[in-house]
Parts: sequence; C-alpha cells; structure tokens
Amino acid sequence: MSTHPLEEILHPKSIAVVGASGSGGRGGGFVTPLLELGYKGKIYPVNPKYPEILGMKAYPSVKDIPGPVDYVISSIPASQVLGMIEDCAQKGVKAVHLFTARFSETGRKDAAELEQEILRRARKAGIRLIGPNCMGVYYPREGISFFGNMPTESGSVGVVSQSGQAVGEIVDLAAERGVRFSKAISYGNALDFNECDYLDYFAQDAETEIILMYVEGVRDGKRFLDSLRHAAAAKPVIIVKGGRGESGARATASHTASLAGSMEIWETLVAQAGVVSAENLEELVDIAVAFYYLSPTTGRRVGVAGGSGGTSVLAADQCEEAGLDVIPLPMEIREELKNEGNAVWDWIGNPADMSISWDDFSTGDIAQRMAKHKDFDLLIVFMSLPYHRGGHRVSLEKHMERYRLEQMSHKPLLVVLGDRVRGMDKDEDASRRMLSEMRRRLIADGVPIYPSIGQAARAASKVIDYYQRRK
Amino acid sequence: MSTHPLEEILHPKSIAVVGASGSGGRGGGFVTPLLELGYKGKIYPVNPKYPEILGMKAYPSVKDIPGPVDYVISSIPASQVLGMIEDCAQKGVKAVHLFTARFSETGRKDAAELEQEILRRARKAGIRLIGPNCMGVYYPREGISFFGNMPTESGSVGVVSQSGQAVGEIVDLAAERGVRFSKAISYGNALDFNECDYLDYFAQDAETEIILMYVEGVRDGKRFLDSLRHAAAAKPVIIVKGGRGESGARATASHTASLAGSMEIWETLVAQAGVVSAENLEELVDIAVAFYYLSPTTGRRVGVAGGSGGTSVLAADQCEEAGLDVIPLPMEIREELKNEGNAVWDWIGNPADMSISWDDFSTGDIAQRMAKHKDFDLLIVFMSLPYHRGGHRVSLEKHMERYRLEQMSHKPLLVVLGDRVRGMDKDEDASRRMLSEMRRRLIADGVPIYPSIGQAARAASKVIDYYQRRK
Repeated sequence: MSTHPLEEILHPKSIAVVGASGSGGRGGGFVTPLLELGYKGKIYPVNPKYPEILGMKAYPSVKDIPGPVDYVISSIPASQVLGMIEDCAQKGVKAVHLFTARFSETGRKDAAELEQEILRRARKAGIRLIGPNCMGVYYPREGISFFGNMPTESGSVGVVSQSGQAVGEIVDLAAERGVRFSKAISYGNALDFNECDYLDYFAQDAETEIILMYVEGVRDGKRFLDSLRHAAAAKPVIIVKGGRGESGARATASHTASLAGSMEIWETLVAQAGVVSAENLEELVDIAVAFYYLSPTTGRRVGVAGGSGGTSVLAADQCEEAGLDVIPLPMEIREELKNEGNAVWDWIGNPADMSISWDDFSTGDIAQRMAKHKDFDLLIVFMSLPYHRGGHRVSLEKHMERYRLEQMSHKPLLVVLGDRVRGMDKDEDASRRMLSEMRRRLIADGVPIYPSIGQAARAASKVIDYYQRRK
Repeated sequence: MSTHPLEEILHPKSIAVVGASGSGGRGGGFVTPLLELGYKGKIYPVNPKYPEILGMKAYPSVKDIPGPVDYVISSIPASQVLGMIEDCAQKGVKAVHLFTARFSETGRKDAAELEQEILRRARKAGIRLIGPNCMGVYYPREGISFFGNMPTESGSVGVVSQSGQAVGEIVDLAAERGVRFSKAISYGNALDFNECDYLDYFAQDAETEIILMYVEGVRDGKRFLDSLRHAAAAKPVIIVKGGRGESGARATASHTASLAGSMEIWETLVAQAGVVSAENLEELVDIAVAFYYLSPTTGRRVGVAGGSGGTSVLAADQCEEAGLDVIPLPMEIREELKNEGNAVWDWIGNPADMSISWDDFSTGDIAQRMAKHKDFDLLIVFMSLPYHRGGHRVSLEKHMERYRLEQMSHKPLLVVLGDRVRGMDKDEDASRRMLSEMRRRLIADGVPIYPSIGQAARAASKVIDYYQRRK
C-alpha cells in the first residue's frame, strides 16, 4: 500500500458535495457522476436551499452531516469557501476538492489573497486541497468521477492534467479505442498539491502503467524535472504542454494562473527527462494507444499491407517521415508468390498496394507473410468495411477472417481503420453498425486502431524511440 | 468554348465500355457509375460473353456497335488492347480511357514496349489516350464517373490525380464538407495526355475555380514548372506529392511507372510556381475547403470563440504555430462586457474560454462581438452538439440560433465541429442525426467545417499565405 498522502485521500469512505443541486447543471452536477459510476461510500449532498437532492437527504452545511466526512467537493462561490473550510476543520475532513474558481486565475489581487488565505486555513486544519478551479478526480475503481458518461471499467493509464476539459477529451478519445484508466486528476491552480505531487503519486502507483500529462505552467522547474525524471524512469510518460506561444501563455494565465515559461527550457527539460512529447491531445491519445497495446519494440522495419494506389505511395512517405523503415518486400516472399503462380507477384511490394492484386489475394494474405518474415519488426495493416463501391457486402465474420489478425499477434501490429462512416454511403446506418462492431472486435483482441496511416506511424515511432532510449 | 483537345473528349455523345460486365465487380463496373450519375449520351456495353448487360444490349466488339462511338473505356486485359485500338480506329473513336493496367508499371520490358506500341497505333489513328492504369474521368455535369456513390451535383473544384484511389479519397472527404467538383481526372501512367496537359486544361477551364493535384512523378520538369506557374497564376493550385521518400519512390515506380525525383527540386519548383503544398490527402482537402468557402483575405488576426480550459490554451498555441495572430481581446470588447455587468468580463480573452462564463453568455455572443470589431481579420468558432454532460438537450433550432452565424458572414469564418459522435454517448443515434443536421445547415450557409482547431488554423493560414503572395 502506498504511503503517498494522495493514496488515503483518493480512497474516501464518504464524500460531501457542497453546493450540490439536483438539476444536473454545471457545478451542482457532482452528485450524479458519483451515482452513475457507482461510488460505494456515503454521499452527502450539502445545500441549505434543498431538503433533498436526487432522493437523498440534503444537509444545510458540512457540520450538519451526521457521520464522518473524508472528502468534500466544493462548488459554492469563492466568497463562501473560507466558512466552508472552517466547517470541514470542525468535521475532521481530510481533503477538499475545490471546483470553485475565480481565484488567482482572475488576475485580481483580492482573489489571489483569498486563495492564499484558504491555503493557510486548510494547512492549519490539516486539510489537503485539490484545485481550486479544477474538475478533480476520476477514479473508476472507486466510482469517483466529475463527469457522467465516463467508462466504469478500470485500466492502466493515469492522467495528470491542469485542465479538466483536457481530461474529458483524453478519456473520450482514448476510451473509444479501448483504453481504460487507473485514475485521472485535474488540478487547476495547484494551490496545495501541485503537478510534482501528482506526478510523484502516479510514478509509484501500482495501478498505473502509463502516465499522460497535460500541463500549462510549472512552479518549481528544478523539482518538476526531478519528478519527471523519476516518473519517466518508472513508466512511459507522455506530455502535452499548453501555453507554448505568446497567446497560449496569455490564455494559460487566465485559465489556471500559471506562468507558461519558455519553450526552449521546456523542450530541454522534457528531452532530458526521457519523456515523450505530443503536440495536442489527439496526438497524446494516439501515442497512449500505442503504448497501451504494443509490446515493447526497438525495431523500425515496418511492413505495410493494404491501401491502394496513391494511398500506398503516401503510406510509404508518411511512415518514412515518421522515422520508420519501409524496407523492400523480402526476396523470399516474392519468390513464394511467384512459385504459387500469383500473376502480379513482381508488382507486389511494401507497402503492398492492393489496387490490382485484389482478385489474386487479400490484404490479410500479404500481412501474414510479412508477419512470418524475420525482416519485419512491426506491421501496419489497412482494414476496410466489408463493402466496396459497386460490389457486394460479405458478412463481417467472413471479412474479418480474411485478415487472420490472430496469426500476426507475435509482432507489434497497428490497424488503420476509419472511426466513422464517410462520404456518400447510401447504407450509412448498416455501415456504421458494422464499423462499430469491427472496432469492438479489434479492441477485444488488443489491437490499436488509428484513423490514418500518418497517425499510426508517428505513434509507433514514438514508442520505438522510447524503448530504444531505455536499451 | 475551350479549344483544348480535352474539351471535346470530355463531352462524348456516346461511351462504349469494353470489357463491361453486369456483376458490378472491379473492371466491369464502369457501366453502373454512368447509369448512377445519369449520363445522358448513349452507353454501349461491349463483351462477347454476354448478350446483354444491365438490361442493355451488349456488343461483341466496338466494331459491332451500330451508332458512332466518341469515347471508349477499356477494362480488358493488356494483351487485347492493340486489337481493340484497331477496332476503335475503324469506328472513328476520338478517345480511349485505358483502365487496363499491367504495362510499364510492372517494370517488365515487354509490357513497356506494348505500351509504346499502343501509343503509336493510337497516334496513327488520331485517338487520344487517358491512362493507362487509371480510373479516368469523373465529370458530374456530364454524368460521367468511375465510381458510384459520387456526388451528382457540380461544383467549382477540379482534380488532377495520378491515382484514382486518391480521387475517390479527395471526393469522399471533401463532399461531406459540402465541396462539389467540376471534374476530376485520374491519369495513371500518363502515356499520351500527361500531368501538364491536364493542368493546362484545368487552368483554362471556366468550370474550375480551384485545382487540386496529386502527382507522383513528372516527365518533363521544365514544362511542368511552366504549367504549374500558368495554372497558379489563374487560380489556387493545391498539390500533394506522392513518392517523397525512398520507399515512396519505390512504390511510385510500381504504381504508375513514374520517377519520383528529388524532393529538394520539387519543393523549389512548387514554391517558385506559387502553388500551395499539402502533406497528405486530408490536408489537401482541409485547404481546399478553406479556399472553397472563405472570401479572399490577407489578414492574420484571428478571434477564437468557444472551447474551454485546456482546449482554449491549445487552440491559441495551434493557431500561433500555424502562423495566425491570436491578438488579445480588444479593450473595447472588454469595456463593453464590463459595462453590461458581465461578472467574468476581466477573465474573458481571446481565445474566449467558455469553461466558466457559460452561464453568463454564449460562444455566439462573444463571436459576434469579435466579428463586429475591426481588429479581427477572421474568426474560428468552436461549435458543439446541443448536449452537455449531465445537462439537458435543447432543440437544434434554439442551439444554432445562439451562435447567430449569419451575423458574422462579413468576415471569413471557420467552424470547429466534430465529424462524428464520440466516446460514451448513450444517445448515440439521436446525437449522430443531430450532428449530421448541424453540419448540413452549416454547409448550406457556406461555412467551412473542421474536426480540429489545428486543421482549421493551418488551412486558413495557407489561404492567407496565398492571397498575401498575390497582393
């Protein structure tokens, strides 16, 4: 069991939501997610305006709650927080998550002073603070969440984020590719626990194997570098920096009262620490998906199967530009195809362009030959719906069988498959259901899915970089 | 009326499909698209194996067709093409589109010689060739297409592509953002008409206002530079080069028998010609969408409305990295908000982060103020479904009204709106229908839609680059 102070805080036996409302609107909405995610402890809605909320008795203040309260979520206005902290002190509350905002991020002196006063009072009472100005904690195993519609199952990815919106984005994007989370914490203004504390916590957390981080500003560069180094030595850390430019830094100040700092220093720091860097949340998720599913690999020789015509040519370009090595199709495979009497044997290469060879054999056929050949370190396979322009649809079973992905599982494999039904498809609903089902099956088989070859290649290359550095 | 030789060829009064079949499978499938797109001329299926195809009389050879034949689509094997050309010569055919492949792109000497012999015989008979090894022509106004499921309406975008697959991709991706096409030609091995001919044609084509090009290799660099320059002087030309790297160049050779050439020379060439360059087909379409909808603009000062928290910060970063100027929110707008008693007036900036100000006012409100202010040259507005976590759904009408986009139409406006329903939405079908309807309405109003801020910002910046160069 971890001795990090966050460990106890993240396992509360009871949660009071101060400023709760039954409307489900912003601020008051923290009760509903706890119910939806199935939080097992006691939930106490607190609001003097209501006798009950969502069928539960509501209390006028934290002091009025009959049993002990471990954890408080505050969505009352900033001006009422000091009084609430006093109540919490009397009640023996261990931690308060301040969703409440309008503190230092406003740029106002009085608001910043109030923030500091809250910290002093909390410290005096031995209360730890998450936030303020943040969405707080998503911890599916404990049934804690700040949004509804989050996966109830647990996984191995931890998220530390200065922005709660970013956590929502990351979980949304990653969940539909099968990634599940240990816990995700949005920390806003980082008044008490800061980015280093959370990073240290995830570094030693046995439930977390991959750390994703969205950070805007850092208070103590030296300590942050230490924490980053320490975390990156333990597990892959993938990071997005917000506030890289002048306008982003300005937005950062009003978002979380952070100093964005110089990008040159940042980049040096990240590179020194052995952290994987991403440009935006989409790329962060692409890389996370690769780390989540791929076995550690240090080889760059990629086999690309499927795609056709210009798509194949651009696939080669984009793999190469991402730092993968698109080797020519090995002679042994060419000989094999020739000896089997394949009419286009001399035309099939790597990438294996399927625009002409379609009738002779399938993407799955060439992908399997690549998987068996020692010269390939990893595979990227284009998959499509069982439907072609002007052609007939075969059953999903038959279609998936042709790829025989299970026979490639000894090599790192990434699949390129759209995340939506495109264009002028007249049979959109059926296609969409089929696409969902294909994606569901691939995810169940532990296959990472990318909507484009460029994204797949760049994510794979970052994973290889990481394992090469560790060698 | 254009005097370019392609003009007459692209307006055939009759088309014979040699090697037609009724199965709709590959190769034989050229009859169905003509029927689907509503080709008004006479269609003659040619195949000695069938007495009729899709309810039409089929002829054993081109010679057996009773009326005159202007245009022939060939999907017979390479070995039969010379004989077919003889038949066409006797019949007075003006042009043959050779879908037929397995010529020089195989790398075989005999196949390359056969290709040259076909060119000689065609020249002798005054027959022009499109291809070989290509999908040919999509010309919605004439009802000509090589795929079904292509838009039947015409537009102002022309496509020249060495790859037919790329044409399909481009049309698919652009069509669902409301872009329509004048004509798209895939030219494969470019045996007779080559990339320069097609470019020259589109440059002078009154139906085409924007030219998109996918090219792998160029035969005559000097002439190509002239054609590019000439085209780019007349209208925006956006280009993707396939075969940029070593493996891509190898793929290019077997795809269309082209020499990919050096990227350094290519980049110089493209920059000199004033052509807009894209990395892949997705980016090509993003830029095309911007040129299609945005009024010419040379100013870079962007107002970004909507998004929240980290999304706003990263929006600022990505706009700046794309070359836009994310200016601070002008003092006049801040004063306006303050005077109206907006409680978070001092917190609202550019980008306008909506994470706290939600209840006070809307994305549409701040976007309109930005639209009215002289300091902004263009706007990017984040839109979302009328649905929020834990909240209730308002009607689409009410939701769209809040943005009041029609009041921003005097400034270039780009909208960021997902192209699919994401994540854990439990009401997926209803959300999807609503998203489609929102997109339909935006497109009807002539608004370019992007799935991410990065894509919107990069596309807008390339349009601004273009008009700045022309100034």
